[in-house]
Parts: sequence; structure tokens; C-alpha cells
Amino acid sequence: MSGGLRVWQDMEKERETLQAWKERVGQELDRVMAFWMEHSHDQEHGGFFTCLGRDGRVYDDLKYVWLQGRQVWMYCHLYRKFERFRRPELLESAKAGGEFLLRSARVAPPGKKCAFVLTRDGRPVKVQRTIFSECFYTMAMNELWRVTGEAHYQIEAVEMMDQIVHWVREDPSGLGRPQLPGAPASEPMAVPMMLLNLVEQLGESDEELAGKYAELGDWCAQRILQHVQRDGQAVLENVSEDGEELPGCLGRHQNPGHALEAGWFLLRHAIQKGDPELRAYVVDKFLLLPFRSGWDPDHGGLFYFQDADGLCPTQLEWAMKLWWPHSEAMIAFLMGYSDSGDPALLHLFYQVAEYTFRQFRDPEYGEWFGYLNREGRVVLTIKGGPFKGCFHVPRCLAMCEEMLGALLSRLPPVPAPSAGSLPAAPAHRGAE
Amino acid sequence: MSGGLRVWQDMEKERETLQAWKERVGQELDRVMAFWMEHSHDQEHGGFFTCLGRDGRVYDDLKYVWLQGRQVWMYCHLYRKFERFRRPELLESAKAGGEFLLRSARVAPPGKKCAFVLTRDGRPVKVQRTIFSECFYTMAMNELWRVTGEAHYQIEAVEMMDQIVHWVREDPSGLGRPQLPGAPASEPMAVPMMLLNLVEQLGESDEELAGKYAELGDWCAQRILQHVQRDGQAVLENVSEDGEELPGCLGRHQNPGHALEAGWFLLRHAIQKGDPELRAYVVDKFLLLPFRSGWDPDHGGLFYFQDADGLCPTQLEWAMKLWWPHSEAMIAFLMGYSDSGDPALLHLFYQVAEYTFRQFRDPEYGEWFGYLNREGRVVLTIKGGPFKGCFHVPRCLAMCEEMLGALLSRLPPVPAPSAGSLPAAPAHRGAE
Repeated sequence: MSGGLRVWQDMEKERETLQAWKERVGQELDRVMAFWMEHSHDQEHGGFFTCLGRDGRVYDDLKYVWLQGRQVWMYCHLYRKFERFRRPELLESAKAGGEFLLRSARVAPPGKKCAFVLTRDGRPVKVQRTIFSECFYTMAMNELWRVTGEAHYQIEAVEMMDQIVHWVREDPSGLGRPQLPGAPASEPMAVPMMLLNLVEQLGESDEELAGKYAELGDWCAQRILQHVQRDGQAVLENVSEDGEELPGCLGRHQNPGHALEAGWFLLRHAIQKGDPELRAYVVDKFLLLPFRSGWDPDHGGLFYFQDADGLCPTQLEWAMKLWWPHSEAMIAFLMGYSDSGDPALLHLFYQVAEYTFRQFRDPEYGEWFGYLNREGRVVLTIKGGPFKGCFHVPRCLAMCEEMLGALLSRLPPVPAPSAGSLPAAPAHRGAE
Repeated sequence: MSGGLRVWQDMEKERETLQAWKERVGQELDRVMAFWMEHSHDQEHGGFFTCLGRDGRVYDDLKYVWLQGRQVWMYCHLYRKFERFRRPELLESAKAGGEFLLRSARVAPPGKKCAFVLTRDGRPVKVQRTIFSECFYTMAMNELWRVTGEAHYQIEAVEMMDQIVHWVREDPSGLGRPQLPGAPASEPMAVPMMLLNLVEQLGESDEELAGKYAELGDWCAQRILQHVQRDGQAVLENVSEDGEELPGCLGRHQNPGHALEAGWFLLRHAIQKGDPELRAYVVDKFLLLPFRSGWDPDHGGLFYFQDADGLCPTQLEWAMKLWWPHSEAMIAFLMGYSDSGDPALLHLFYQVAEYTFRQFRDPEYGEWFGYLNREGRVVLTIKGGPFKGCFHVPRCLAMCEEMLGALLSRLPPVPAPSAGSLPAAPAHRGAE
């Protein structure tokens, strides 16, 4: 076989595999969105039911603010980015969700603190002393502004963003956390991750806000990088304010899926900055390192939690396989490959995607299961709950569909080999 | 075989089985206590390390106040009740633990609110807005008073008890929970359970305090009984203040091991009150009902959580098998049998005890594993952690040893059958 022929065959094989995954991912996105559109809309109060059983039945009508904000964001984002989702019912449901949030998310308006969970009609049930409800609120409002052009959404987004930044960088007292003498001043990686994501969200195609938050973006990246510890051998979820390892379980706590998610946030940031050194570092420390430690050699899938010393974590669910670390890993490896062209990253994408589609999809009722035991058996049959809504799965599928499309479009056009000169390429489908 | 012979054989068989379990349980108690005495004592600051790995190694030095109080209680209780545990090192460690609590448990003395977790040297790390740290503090202080006779321990116990009762029955504002308009006024069963346990603790052989808290004991029992819902077909963990089922997952939440623990608290209360109707009701609703719904027909063991409608719980650990529901079930069924003589309850004790000894014991390093998956495989190898300390296992073993001893002493004395008239009884050991 000539060298030219082999190159051609390899390229054809890659094209076919990428194409097969693009189709598979796109069809799955349609199916997943159909599930949420059919089962989750609250026609009476606006907003979304997210406590949905396997078949979509509502088993609780509480409204978790994280998930309300995320679903508004997801609907708007698809409406804006995908021709086939530019459908009035998506926009209307997103706006009804946004109005529900505007009306009910804040515990004591005009104070900006948002509830963690609300009753169906919007009365606060619980408040968390963190920034995350407010962050998903901000994402929802900014994306609503992008699709509707209505200024009040953007005013809400920017005001809330400035409040969050104030809590994180200046004065956390408004969050209501007691200052206890034995509690170490620790930084969960989620905080700079979430802020970096907001910087990307608000700055997209918006020079003014991109400029306003540029320094914040760099600060977030720097803070996330401080979580690489032990001479670059571990990403730790919690470090001290000045970037040192904390004592005990808190300090040793690892969450491989979260590190991979931080990885693609950082990679996107590094690509925008045009920083090749950071790009390579992120792939090494936030993609390959967590995957190596976090992938279960016996049963496949990513462990939920680990201990950096290899001790047993104290969280009961540490060995379970959750849907979202796997969707984040799919994004991270495909983005890593798109940026670097390193085929090892593409193969990791295939490895994770094949496990994920095989184990989490529900071919019967649609959407994905969220919670498997170590061996891969479904432990919780719910499709949505207090922490699983219309977000990680469709975000992953939408981003992968876009990245696969971009990769395919970068391949040289298909040549028209003369009949007989080349064997018919086998129908290799990495997706099977 | 004559009727008299059969009765004699059955009685001999029961005696042997009870005797075998008494020995097994007693030996296990010695082994379990040896584990804690070897690995958990903090000689520098007093109190106990409870984050212990499989082999007893300390993997974190945080001190969880529930577990500090419980271990002090356990040491004193064994010292007081068992001749073989009347050892100076137990008393000294208990007193050092008590002094640690006196010095450090309260977040802001003279306020009575206690921390949930402290640093090794006693600085508060986290505070829970519940009564449980304070309850275990009270148990520790009362039991310390019983073994030392030192009045300051009892003063502490009674003052804290009165504070807890004030929080529960008069004004919860000192606990710091926000009143949110969407949060239903719900009662977790743990609150009246814990208070009833304290009433028993403080009133033991103490006519004055027994009298002082008699009305409270009846109130607690009444409140626990309100958790029997759905025409007596389900024990629900959370009900409204006026004893109605709450909507959603919160209302449907069940914890079979907790119901069984409430069962033996109530049964002890009913025995003291001499209330035969309540005794029968408790056996039916708090022992047999939770066991029937909660015992896994496929793999054995009690599920951790269930949903009263048979829906999938949202807690990731719902199908896991935890050590403490099983130790509570052992106590409940043996107490039920001791009280009623119903052999069905004795057989349930054997069924649970055999599963428990087979699945949770660690024959290699001592103590019990705490966390198994549904199939019974050990998921967490730790012997102690934020919620597992020196309490449920030794309390169960000590109570079972005492109850088995009492049952044996109630059997008629062994007759001396003439040689040859009876076959040698087979060495039946339910324990194998």
C-alpha cells in the first residue's frame, strides 16, 4: 500500500468516524431536548419542573434555582446557535422561566441574594450561603438578553455579576457565612471556575464587557491554576486563599470531572488569549492528569470523588459514576483535540463518549440516567432532580456537535478517486 | 418423640442459640472497644480521633462533636454497666473527652450552641442549626456524672437539656435557622426521638429528673407516633407540625433503620409506662412495618432510604446498606422479643444479626465497615468518619449482650436428664 493511499485512507476513516459521532450527538441532542420540552414546562407559574422520573413524570414540584437558570440559558443558547432550535416554544418557555426568576429568585428584594430552592409558585424554601444560584441567574439573564434584545435582562445580568464579584473579591459577608476561628480560609475551585465561565458568557461578542471583565478573567484563571498542587501531580478541589494545600480530607479532596470541566474553561480562556504555553499546561494538568487518576480501570467511567493520597474518601457516593463528569470530559477532550490536533485526545474523547452513550442513555424514555454504581448499574432511575436538570447533557451534545462540525469542515474536501484504485472504506463507526 | 421431649429439645435449642449469640456478641464488643481504645485517643488535647481508616490509622484529626459526646457516653456506660469494662483507662479517656467538650464544644460561651465539628485543639469549624451536638453533649455529661459523681457534669447536662427543650418547644430562634415563607413547618422524627432518648438517659434511677421530664417523655412519644401515616401503613421521617403528611419528596421520605431505632426508644418508654396497647402498636408499626418495606429481598440488608410511594429516592446513597440501621434493628427485635416472647421477633433478630455479622464485621482489623453497596460489597473501607464513631456498634453489642443474658436467666434451669434417655443436642449455632 502506498504512503499516499494510507494517508488518504486514514483521513477517510477519521472523516467517517467524526461524521458518525456528529450525527449521533445531534440526534441525541434532539431527543434530550424533546424530553424536557414535553415534561418540564410549568404552564401555570412559568419555570420548569426538574424533578422528573424515568418516564418524565413529575415526582416533586420544587424549583431549584440553579436548574431554573440553567434551563433558561440552555433554551436561549440553542435558540441562538442552532437553526433547528429557533422555535417559538423554546423562546416562550425561556422567557417564562426568566420572568419566574425575576419575580421569585431573590429572597428579600431589592437584596440580590437568591434562594437555592423555591416552591412551585416561587416562595423561598432554602438559601445557600454561596454564589451559585446567583451565577446561574446571571447566565440566564445574559442569554435572554442575547435572544430577545430586551435591555432589562442585560441590566439584571450585569448588576448581579457585579454583586457576585463583590462577594468573591471584596466582602463575602452578604452571603451570611459565619466566620469561625477553626475554619480555614479555603477556596473551592468551583468559585473561580464559575466566575471564569461568567466572564466568557458576558464577554462573548461584547467588547465593552469583555474589556470590563478582562482582568477578572485572568484572576480567575490564576486562581484555578493554584489548585494544581504537589509539584503538578494533583488537582485539588480546595486550597488555601494563598494557594497552599489544606490539611485533612478537605485538602486532599479531588473531583476528576470537575477538574476536566475546569480544563475546558481554562482551555477556552487560553485559546482566546492566544497563550500556547497555557494551552499545553491545561491539557496536561486538567485533562490528562485527572483522567489518569479518575478513570476506573476495572469498570470504566470516572470516579466521582478521590483522595489525593489514595485513601478512601468519606463521601458515600465517591465510587459512583455520575452523568456530568462524563459530559464535561467529552467536551474537554474534543476541545483539546480541536485545539492541538493530538490524536491521543481524540481517542480519549471516543473512549469517554462510548462509555457515556452506552451507560447513561435511556433508549426507552429519552434523556440520560444520572447516577450509576461503580459497576455501571443504574442506581437512581430519575432523569432530573435537585441537581440534574436540562443543562450538562444538552450543553455537552450541543458543544460536541459544533466542534465535530468544525473539525469536519477543516478536513480537505473529499477527492474523487478513480474507480478501482482504492478499496471501499469500511464503515468504521466509533459510535457503535 | 414425646411432646415433653420435644418441648425440652426446643428449649435446649433456644438456650444454646441464645448462649452462642451472647458469647459472640460479648467477644465482638471486646474487640470493637479494643479498636477504639488503641487508635482513637488524643493524648495531647483530650477527646477522640474518629476519622480512622480500616486499620485504625488517623486520616483526619477533625473532631465531630456528635461523635465526641457519643464516645464519652459509651465509655462511661460500659464502665458503669459491665464489670469487665470497669478499667481506669476507660474512665480517664472519658473524662479527658468530657473536659475537651466542656472546654471547646460551645461556639460562643456562655451561649449554649455547640459546634458540629472542631479542630483537633478545639476551635469551631462548622455549626449546624439543629439540636444534635447539644444532645450528645448532654448524654456525655450525664453519664460522666453517673460514673464520677462529680456534680458539675450533671449541672452541665441539666442546663443543656433545658436549653434544648426551650429550642424545641418554645423558641427555635437561638438555633439560627431562617424562617422562609416557602419552607413548610416540618418536624423531623429525629427531634422527638433524640429528646425521648435524653428523657430516658436523665431519668434513669433518678426520681426527681424522671418526674421533671415525665410530661416531656409523653409529648415526645406522641410526636413520634404522629409519624405513622397513611392509615398506619407507613412511618414517614418528616411530617407537619400538626402531624399531617407533607408534599413532595420531603413528605414521602422514609428511613427504615431510623424507624426501627424509634421503635426501641418507644418500646422502652411503653414498657416503663406499663402500656401493653402501645407496646403491641410499636412492634407492629415501628418494627415489623419498616422491616417489611425496608429489607432488600434480593440481597438482604436494610435500604438506607425509601420513598413511601415506591418512587426512586433522590439521595445517591438510598440503596446502600449502612451499619447503624442494622445495629438498631438488632436492638429493636431483641427488645421486642424480650418483651413479648413472640418467636417471630427472635427470628428477625437472628436474620438481621447474621446478615450484620457476616457483612459488616472486619475480621482482620476489628470494628465494622460502615458503608456497603446494595449487593453488600464494602464501598468505604473507613472504620470511622464524620458520622461513624464509637457508638452504634458497641451500644448494640452491649445492649444485646445484656438482653441475651436476661433471656437466658429467665429460662428454667437446665435439668439433668438421665444418660441415654435423650440424644445429645446438636451444636446449633445460629451465629454461624
